[in-house]
Amino acid sequence: MMTTNTEQDIHELGRRLLEVTQVKSQSFFKSIDPLQKVMALSMASQDLKTSLFRLVDVMPALKTGEQVAKHIEEYLLHENSSLPGSLKYLLKGFCETSIGKSLILPIMRQNIKLMSKGFIVGEEIGKAQHKLSKLWNQGLCFTVDILGEQVLTPSEAYESQQQYLKLVYDLAKASKSWGAWKLPERHSGGSIPRANVSVKCSSLYRNIDGGAFRRTVEGVKNALRPIVSAAVANGVFVYLDMEQNDYRDVIFTVAEELFSEPEFIKYPHLGIVVQTYLMSAEEDLERMVMLAKSRGTPLTIRLVKGAYWDAEVAWSLQRGWDCPVFSQKSATDLNYETVCKKIVTYFPHLYPAFATHNIRSMAHALTVSREAGLHNSDVEIQMLYGMASVLKESLVGMGVRVRDYAPIGKIIPGMAYLVRRLLENTSNEGFLRSWLMEKAEMERLLSSPQQRLELSQNINLKNTIKGNHFINVIEGRRMTHFVNEPFWDYGLQQNRSKADEALAQVRKQLPLVIHPQMEGKELPTEDRLTTVNPSQCKEIVSEFSCATIEQADQAVVICQKHAEDWKNTDVRDRCLILRRAAQMMRDKRAELIAIIVLEVGKSYKEADADVAEAIDFCDYYAELAGKMLTSPAVMYIPGEDNQFQYWPRGIALTIAPWNFPVAILCGMTVAPLVCGNPVIMKPAEQSVASGYALYKILIEAGVPAGVLQFLPGRGEQVGAHLVAHPQIAVISFTGSRDVGMQIMKTASVLAPKQKLIKKVVAELGGKNAVIVDDDADLDEAVNACLQSSFGFAGQKCSALSRIIIHKNLYTEFKKRFSEAVQAWLVGPAEDLSYEMGPVIDRSAQERLLGALERNRAHIVAQKVLPEEMMERGFFVPPTVLACEDPSSELGQIEFFGPVVTLFKADDLEQAIQILNNVDYALTGGFFSRSPGNIIKVREKAEVGNLYINRGITGALVGRQPFGGFKLSGVGAKAGGPDYLLNFLEGRTVTENTLRRGFVPELT
Amino acid sequence: MMTTNTEQDIHELGRRLLEVTQVKSQSFFKSIDPLQKVMALSMASQDLKTSLFRLVDVMPALKTGEQVAKHIEEYLLHENSSLPGSLKYLLKGFCETSIGKSLILPIMRQNIKLMSKGFIVGEEIGKAQHKLSKLWNQGLCFTVDILGEQVLTPSEAYESQQQYLKLVYDLAKASKSWGAWKLPERHSGGSIPRANVSVKCSSLYRNIDGGAFRRTVEGVKNALRPIVSAAVANGVFVYLDMEQNDYRDVIFTVAEELFSEPEFIKYPHLGIVVQTYLMSAEEDLERMVMLAKSRGTPLTIRLVKGAYWDAEVAWSLQRGWDCPVFSQKSATDLNYETVCKKIVTYFPHLYPAFATHNIRSMAHALTVSREAGLHNSDVEIQMLYGMASVLKESLVGMGVRVRDYAPIGKIIPGMAYLVRRLLENTSNEGFLRSWLMEKAEMERLLSSPQQRLELSQNINLKNTIKGNHFINVIEGRRMTHFVNEPFWDYGLQQNRSKADEALAQVRKQLPLVIHPQMEGKELPTEDRLTTVNPSQCKEIVSEFSCATIEQADQAVVICQKHAEDWKNTDVRDRCLILRRAAQMMRDKRAELIAIIVLEVGKSYKEADADVAEAIDFCDYYAELAGKMLTSPAVMYIPGEDNQFQYWPRGIALTIAPWNFPVAILCGMTVAPLVCGNPVIMKPAEQSVASGYALYKILIEAGVPAGVLQFLPGRGEQVGAHLVAHPQIAVISFTGSRDVGMQIMKTASVLAPKQKLIKKVVAELGGKNAVIVDDDADLDEAVNACLQSSFGFAGQKCSALSRIIIHKNLYTEFKKRFSEAVQAWLVGPAEDLSYEMGPVIDRSAQERLLGALERNRAHIVAQKVLPEEMMERGFFVPPTVLACEDPSSELGQIEFFGPVVTLFKADDLEQAIQILNNVDYALTGGFFSRSPGNIIKVREKAEVGNLYINRGITGALVGRQPFGGFKLSGVGAKAGGPDYLLNFLEGRTVTENTLRRGFVPELT
Repeated sequence: MMTTNTEQDIHELGRRLLEVTQVKSQSFFKSIDPLQKVMALSMASQDLKTSLFRLVDVMPALKTGEQVAKHIEEYLLHENSSLPGSLKYLLKGFCETSIGKSLILPIMRQNIKLMSKGFIVGEEIGKAQHKLSKLWNQGLCFTVDILGEQVLTPSEAYESQQQYLKLVYDLAKASKSWGAWKLPERHSGGSIPRANVSVKCSSLYRNIDGGAFRRTVEGVKNALRPIVSAAVANGVFVYLDMEQNDYRDVIFTVAEELFSEPEFIKYPHLGIVVQTYLMSAEEDLERMVMLAKSRGTPLTIRLVKGAYWDAEVAWSLQRGWDCPVFSQKSATDLNYETVCKKIVTYFPHLYPAFATHNIRSMAHALTVSREAGLHNSDVEIQMLYGMASVLKESLVGMGVRVRDYAPIGKIIPGMAYLVRRLLENTSNEGFLRSWLMEKAEMERLLSSPQQRLELSQNINLKNTIKGNHFINVIEGRRMTHFVNEPFWDYGLQQNRSKADEALAQVRKQLPLVIHPQMEGKELPTEDRLTTVNPSQCKEIVSEFSCATIEQADQAVVICQKHAEDWKNTDVRDRCLILRRAAQMMRDKRAELIAIIVLEVGKSYKEADADVAEAIDFCDYYAELAGKMLTSPAVMYIPGEDNQFQYWPRGIALTIAPWNFPVAILCGMTVAPLVCGNPVIMKPAEQSVASGYALYKILIEAGVPAGVLQFLPGRGEQVGAHLVAHPQIAVISFTGSRDVGMQIMKTASVLAPKQKLIKKVVAELGGKNAVIVDDDADLDEAVNACLQSSFGFAGQKCSALSRIIIHKNLYTEFKKRFSEAVQAWLVGPAEDLSYEMGPVIDRSAQERLLGALERNRAHIVAQKVLPEEMMERGFFVPPTVLACEDPSSELGQIEFFGPVVTLFKADDLEQAIQILNNVDYALTGGFFSRSPGNIIKVREKAEVGNLYINRGITGALVGRQPFGGFKLSGVGAKAGGPDYLLNFLEGRTVTENTLRRGFVPELT
Repeated sequence: MMTTNTEQDIHELGRRLLEVTQVKSQSFFKSIDPLQKVMALSMASQDLKTSLFRLVDVMPALKTGEQVAKHIEEYLLHENSSLPGSLKYLLKGFCETSIGKSLILPIMRQNIKLMSKGFIVGEEIGKAQHKLSKLWNQGLCFTVDILGEQVLTPSEAYESQQQYLKLVYDLAKASKSWGAWKLPERHSGGSIPRANVSVKCSSLYRNIDGGAFRRTVEGVKNALRPIVSAAVANGVFVYLDMEQNDYRDVIFTVAEELFSEPEFIKYPHLGIVVQTYLMSAEEDLERMVMLAKSRGTPLTIRLVKGAYWDAEVAWSLQRGWDCPVFSQKSATDLNYETVCKKIVTYFPHLYPAFATHNIRSMAHALTVSREAGLHNSDVEIQMLYGMASVLKESLVGMGVRVRDYAPIGKIIPGMAYLVRRLLENTSNEGFLRSWLMEKAEMERLLSSPQQRLELSQNINLKNTIKGNHFINVIEGRRMTHFVNEPFWDYGLQQNRSKADEALAQVRKQLPLVIHPQMEGKELPTEDRLTTVNPSQCKEIVSEFSCATIEQADQAVVICQKHAEDWKNTDVRDRCLILRRAAQMMRDKRAELIAIIVLEVGKSYKEADADVAEAIDFCDYYAELAGKMLTSPAVMYIPGEDNQFQYWPRGIALTIAPWNFPVAILCGMTVAPLVCGNPVIMKPAEQSVASGYALYKILIEAGVPAGVLQFLPGRGEQVGAHLVAHPQIAVISFTGSRDVGMQIMKTASVLAPKQKLIKKVVAELGGKNAVIVDDDADLDEAVNACLQSSFGFAGQKCSALSRIIIHKNLYTEFKKRFSEAVQAWLVGPAEDLSYEMGPVIDRSAQERLLGALERNRAHIVAQKVLPEEMMERGFFVPPTVLACEDPSSELGQIEFFGPVVTLFKADDLEQAIQILNNVDYALTGGFFSRSPGNIIKVREKAEVGNLYINRGITGALVGRQPFGGFKLSGVGAKAGGPDYLLNFLEGRTVTENTLRRGFVPELT
């Protein structure tokens, strides 16, 4: 517990800081006009804030006055904009006249430049030196970081590394020439380097991935080593900056391993960051004190609150993971104090650097440091360059060392930083805001966070934010219970181990021997086929019997026999079976993942998503069926009882693809099942073991063996026979267009004795495109296009196949994208290090290589793969092509592999035309920061699933109902609110309840 | 206004009556045990009351102990029954043992007999005479009525007439022998006949129909004349009883005309009834005083409150008509007093008879009569036989003439009467109940209704009950705004006149000349056809140009050209156009009816329903589209904006049938339109003028001419061509199975350049059946089967084609049904007198006559039609066949004409099997009073629309979503909540709203 004395001391120091600062200055910020304006405006309304920040963000990417005018109009001058009238009027003058447009570009640039100047110390180290020396002369020290674009290619990573090296050298050199400093350049442990740099790991390594843990850690270490080495050689201090929580374990591990290398183990000028908005902050600190102790050399800890709060919250909600950050600002503040009190006890293993602008936090930190016996020089306060200069001045006056966090860099890569700073300054909860803008009384500002937290009632700190905290609303029906199954976090060691162990277990049992299953009985046949591991094709995964035509007929007879019972089974019981199946899949998740990885060559992550989607289908359809089938709609009139209810259609045939061997087969099976239809499952020939694993789970979960028949076999035999069978009521097919159209044709002909009209639910292919607008965030666009094109080697219906790029960005996009592809990591699916595995089988490999050969002239970039590798497994080199004719094979034909073609468009209209001018309409994407263009694409893009500013694969059940139209399918929208209707017949029952003139409802 | 004195007098008299009655007896009823029990139980819970009354109702129809036990179990011993435990236990003993079952039939029969004895004076007049003379000796007089089955055949009507004649003779004769009466047998106007009968018009005439006004009035007069004549000859008093409000105008008109005939004009012993629960009661009284004055001879008015309250309320709500009765009991009581005060002022033109058991009403009536100067003998009180004998005694003691309403008849036909009496006695609002059961204080009982009414606040008397008072709930979505368009009440003269005038108007314009309409332009072609009046085939209704193949192609081009604009038109505007079209159809209703009547031979009523349904489609789909398309479902996760929305599918082709030439064409056109699809309308060749009238309305209502093309023509040419056209996205077809299957086949083949998968919405035929269970209410079953089989000459998809009758009822059903068919009134559609018109064309006529010829041996009854008539129009004699083989042509083939076949079933299981064993599954019906059997049929009947205890045609939009499965169609359910999905594609748009780490929703 905090003593009363300490609390008094904190208040006293805090009051001093507040008073001295307020007396010295009316304005807390450097007086930069545009910045002040933007911030004042942002506080007027949330919508305006969003618009302003987005406008600021996109501005540097705009090249012409026209563009600037268009964006200003779209963001600020629309009819619902809450921009003040006078300002609107002024801006309209600029945006709507040609003179205005010619002036606006330089004006806005100037403004942005002015704004960024407030926060950025210079474009590069050369230009920044003057400012840094000025700071030095004011008694401030600094740490310099380089604002970085996300590095997407090895050459970008290399360039970034070179910049850091130059920074180390130049800074070391420059700082030598500076005069004596106001404060002593020493602390208890010795001298304090004048030159100090902060390094972001993500700017040095192309693909940080907690799942590919060792590969990432080694990669980052390799990139960092020369920098740290140069720092040691030049006596420069190096901080490893902390970034999003996903990278945390990687960065701490890098610190542990790299800083313990012989070259660095004795170097005292190394630092790292602990973020106290993380619930893990105390553990993180413990980890770092362990490192310091094991090194035997002190380490500096920069204690921050954390700058990714919005994103951490959003990501965790989107993924359904526990939120890593505290949901309340005051909890973070409290945690800051808690960790603060701990860190001072670890002195001199750890040297504390308190990074905060909150005077309460600052006063607390300085007070507890003093109480713990630390000398003034053993502690420092860090603040951001460009902010609170008066406060800094006061602190320096009090003999406190203050270090500015001083970024260098260009405006474009600096935008993320600038927006983050703007946000911080206008946050409703920010200390600066309440101090400056709202002039809250001093005492409240200095009150302890414990106290503030207690004021907000009943907050369970750890559980405030959860995925299911938010409610899905579908067509007015609240889907309160459905929450997507979270993916496994492969950043966690235990998940990686579970998956590895299960893979080894399954591998021991290979080959799996599988036969048709009817009425629960195993029925081997003569006709045998195998499935193999696409990463290593000599490994046979399963040997299976192909079902015969007689068996297919028999399966129908069995289904017919049990149909009535299943139809009459209470729908709640059928739902319960699905819920149980979902739970069993959770329980057997590692095993299912292993089978999928081995049988179809999916990566662990993709295989996990496959299982999670299967779980989602069970939960979602159970939820939906529970709603649709238990409460028949009543249209009530006295004397007339009307019920609108649903009946199962009849026997459903499920013909599934191999690319989501569990998920799609599961969705297409449990949907008709939960509606009360018997189902004949026909898994793809390439993924029989995965299908069988699902079948077993469904049976174990309680699906009566009489209503679910498992018929592996040859599609052209058993599949075709059943499609034509007069007693099959619904055919669910996901696969190629040709087969799908053939099924539709066959199913539309009445067979003798056929007493029903067949329904075909067909999900066919796609020729999916993304449009990259001229104002797109290129980092995001390139990265998302890479993932969408090459995830699971492009073998998803949703995969990206065409990238249509605005001519202004074409060259740059092509360059970055191509370089990234050439560095793409291709290898066996079971190794988490790789970014891409093989394609499904030899014939797919040959087909794809053939297509690439045919289009050799169009290839602009291709990863080179060793011949041996392509023989060992069904690997296909990820390839980028470029083409000018959208009507060519490259623009029209679905390849279903790691092949993507670039198209150049003169403008958005042409881009949309190219996007739409195919037979398919499945997925599509758009990268843009123009609200108007986004609306246009929303309205015009002929796709079933449109994604704005993100990748185009990975639709989630319930959240992104999936499926296309045109020749991509019948628009059934799997995982959507209408999907079950495919397996149901509406039925109306009307009863006249008026009898002998007596109406029960009226009496 | 009532004076204070009057009110005091009423209270004084009321108190005297209450006191004297209470002193004399503890029980108000005759002490009949089972009756007391049933009533006491009924008051325990509403459900139990319903069950008990239904059980009492069905009891006389049960023939075996097994049956009785089954019904008792189903009604009273189910788990939710609120029957007291001890009674349950006792009944279980009877129902679950074989001894019990052997005892239960006689026991229950005895009980029912005892109950009915309390209310029914005897089975027939012979057996009743003794009781009547006993009443006479007690000082009571009486009016005798005969409890009647609904008469369904001329012979039943004849028999009923003979019974009345016998009653008149026998009663006159018997009463002569009785001794002197306690009170004087005279009033101011002269002697009072001892013999008095009450006649129900509906028991004398087969088909009372206010719409067929003259035919009905003449028919009823002819049936009544001999009875009144006999009454005059024998000095017997005759009352015309009043029945449901639908018959009111007919009965008053009959009284006006018949009582003014020379033979009867001077006869003073005639009476009629005024019902004061009707809002029209005062007008009705005025009408009768006019009659009395014009006759110059007094008329007696029996003033009642009315016995059909439940039914009147339910019917009016079901039809959407203004409710004719007051919604509150006290309003009826008040109206009784209002009319009462009026009637005494009309003395001696009108002699009043106050029929009431309410002591307040009685005291009021006697008091105001006295105040008006009427002598005691000029007024009488009427009460029901078997009720309130003590009160009657007291009144007689006070010198008031009391007349019992004394029914004679068998138990089965008496059931309606018995149940109505039970209801009256247990009604929550009934005076008797509050007096006897709840011992309410005297003053409240005698308080004026005005006062009671004022206690209930804010009741707008005239508008409490309205159709839209009740809320349709569809799948949790409240369809608050949709209310079915009410049918025209042809009982109203003004509607009949409007229809007649419009018909004459349209007839003047014949032939209508019609051409294809594209982009609003009229495009005549060389190829001409005509439509003719099926009732009179020489009358040419329209001459039309058939669209050419080139025009069809051009229509697609035009649709394509305007598709984007229409898709982008705000859905609210599209909805508004539909609403406007609905309103225009209301405005032009008479004209539309006339065209339909002339062109397809529908009766006025059927044509009106056709138009009303078209209006409903517009309103309902607009409502639905407004809901589905304006609020895309949001599945909200911070940083991820998901919208699930619907897009139009593309050009829709509507191929419509002639049998609902406006309604079906309208539904199939406006549904795709409101969803944003362009539509090509192809009306049937036989109903081009009707289709054109609809087209014109839609265009005038605002459908852009570019998105709606009207293409009359030959189905096999222009229809087939468009079905195969690569740019048609949806084909809506309603028609024959063969054509439908051909369309599905053609549509499933990809044409060159086709870029979409076609959707076919097919509504094909039916072979609809009704099952008549062994406990069915035969009156209702026969009547509903007649309407369902022969309405619009059986030319509805929903029409009844097979009647499957339990063997126990087979003979009786066949007899009554056959006789009714032989009397069926067939004639030109435009004459409201007829029950059936022609079929659509010569080829249909020939096809049907051929089928009848082929099955001549099976014909059991057929209306004979003159040769000349069948030449003049396309008339086909309504025919009943009987067949033992359900797999024969008669059991399997859709005839689409006035032809129905009877099948006999041994039990319900067999009946269901016969019902299901066809290729179709459209409509079906079940007549039964067994809750268990009703559940069974609900669960097993393979039909899209099942109707319990009512006819199987006439599905209403929104209330009975319509359509079938198996080979009857794709289950699209027109007028249901899912119908629009046929014309829509689901589309998901996902936007990543996290930019630069900033999530608008979280800030």
